[in-house]
Amino acid sequence: MQRAAGPSSPSCSSPSHCFPLSHRNAAPCGSESPAEPEKHEVRADHSPTDLSRMRSIVSFYVCYLLCLGLGLACVVCVCYWNHRWRGGFRWDGTALQFNWHPVLMVTGLIVLYGNGAVLYRVPLTWGQNKLPWKLLHATLMLLALVLSIVGLCAVFDFHNAKNTPNLYSLHSWIGIAATALFAIQWVVGMAGFLLPCSPISLRTLLKPVHVWLGGSILWLSIAACISGINEKLFFVLKENGNGTQSYANLPAEAVLGNSLGVLIVAFGLVVLKILSNHNWQRPDSRPEDMAYTPLLQEENE
Amino acid sequence: MQRAAGPSSPSCSSPSHCFPLSHRNAAPCGSESPAEPEKHEVRADHSPTDLSRMRSIVSFYVCYLLCLGLGLACVVCVCYWNHRWRGGFRWDGTALQFNWHPVLMVTGLIVLYGNGAVLYRVPLTWGQNKLPWKLLHATLMLLALVLSIVGLCAVFDFHNAKNTPNLYSLHSWIGIAATALFAIQWVVGMAGFLLPCSPISLRTLLKPVHVWLGGSILWLSIAACISGINEKLFFVLKENGNGTQSYANLPAEAVLGNSLGVLIVAFGLVVLKILSNHNWQRPDSRPEDMAYTPLLQEENE
Repeated sequence: MQRAAGPSSPSCSSPSHCFPLSHRNAAPCGSESPAEPEKHEVRADHSPTDLSRMRSIVSFYVCYLLCLGLGLACVVCVCYWNHRWRGGFRWDGTALQFNWHPVLMVTGLIVLYGNGAVLYRVPLTWGQNKLPWKLLHATLMLLALVLSIVGLCAVFDFHNAKNTPNLYSLHSWIGIAATALFAIQWVVGMAGFLLPCSPISLRTLLKPVHVWLGGSILWLSIAACISGINEKLFFVLKENGNGTQSYANLPAEAVLGNSLGVLIVAFGLVVLKILSNHNWQRPDSRPEDMAYTPLLQEENE
Repeated sequence: MQRAAGPSSPSCSSPSHCFPLSHRNAAPCGSESPAEPEKHEVRADHSPTDLSRMRSIVSFYVCYLLCLGLGLACVVCVCYWNHRWRGGFRWDGTALQFNWHPVLMVTGLIVLYGNGAVLYRVPLTWGQNKLPWKLLHATLMLLALVLSIVGLCAVFDFHNAKNTPNLYSLHSWIGIAATALFAIQWVVGMAGFLLPCSPISLRTLLKPVHVWLGGSILWLSIAACISGINEKLFFVLKENGNGTQSYANLPAEAVLGNSLGVLIVAFGLVVLKILSNHNWQRPDSRPEDMAYTPLLQEENE
């Protein structure tokens, strides 16, 4: 992720200058108010605070790389599973259309969603005006939502073509709840945090709900994916005359499907770890900053 | 939950006196050091801070009652399902032995675990020496762990009696991972936070990991339960000559099983909401308290 050059970028020449570990002992580098750039510079002087800051940067980027790597592994794994063992992809009402469902849900509702959620935690974005990053966050989330909705259409179309009822299983109840909450979260987030007319008091009220619901939607999506993969493997891996082995014998497809589930859970744990670390929050977003920084004002400055 | 009377109880006569909303504007009531009880009293003077504190108390107890109510509903629902539709309970290697599995996992790994996790958030416990509450936390968690292990034995015995392989499904992989992590968490927590010989530096290091892993184990358990209920309903609800309706027709048993899944998710959301609220943390446990309070010292005072 590159830093966008712009007139409001303050002087944050290296990550070690842009990663205030604690609001108590380091000035926030890259404030969204560019009026006083000189007070945001923190010089490296190899003090214990700097060492601790560097350790925190390194551990953040280890987690972030893990998040990117696990996300990529999830997408590759779900595509390979459906291409190699389930016959590939088409949009024709057959099982090949159903195959879009796991691919789009894992890519949209898990991987893109998770990456969109941790965007503000990347320290390099802190030395920037917040507005472009909010737009990128909203765009990533919109893309994730669109993929999820297309993924739901794939399974609804497949069910309708086979005259199978929709939305009866617990998997579908949890999955539809996660997608509906995600859609509501996106619309309310857009209206509350991006529309210039939304009052600051509303943003103050919305923010903790938005953050908490964001994490909860990810976990609901993971529960839906785990139950969906489990259900699919029980459906398709049944002993028959064509040489298909049952799920209980753990053939290669079962190991791949189970491993996809483990990768999804590992991805979720890393994302939630990043989101829960107090020291990795954007300095103006920390809960103990009692003087809430008005986002609208920041963006207009 | 009653307050334990003891020589170390400081004077916290009402909840409004015992609920410091912010470490910045309220003295912590009920410190674990009983040496200076007079400094822990905060008198109600109907200031805006007191009103805000009262609002926070009320919203905490609403969440806590919801947590207790949803937990009870989960246990009643899983027992009723297995008693009314699955034939009840026995320990004889048949399907009646399997019925202990969902009951014990939901009761242990979800309900008791979740209630044990939020114990420190109950404001009435803040006016007490921490040690008895740590012992209660450890005891509740041990009981939850024992029930979960017996619940696993129920399904292993049932599989072995039927010559069905164990631990092949994604549900079982996630469930066994959750229980194993829970066992490790309990042993490390016991050694790190209750043994008098464990150094303070180890506790400081362990605490954020213990808290983060605690929440993650709950979510893993929920994912395991959702996939398990979904799998069970697909297994048992198949159209046959005996009048059993398929899962797709949503008979009463399917609605009850799905509702159990929804109750479990709602319980998890409330528990995680309580755990994530910064203002509901025990004052000496908040992350921004840079001067870490040595637990060992507190307990010995």
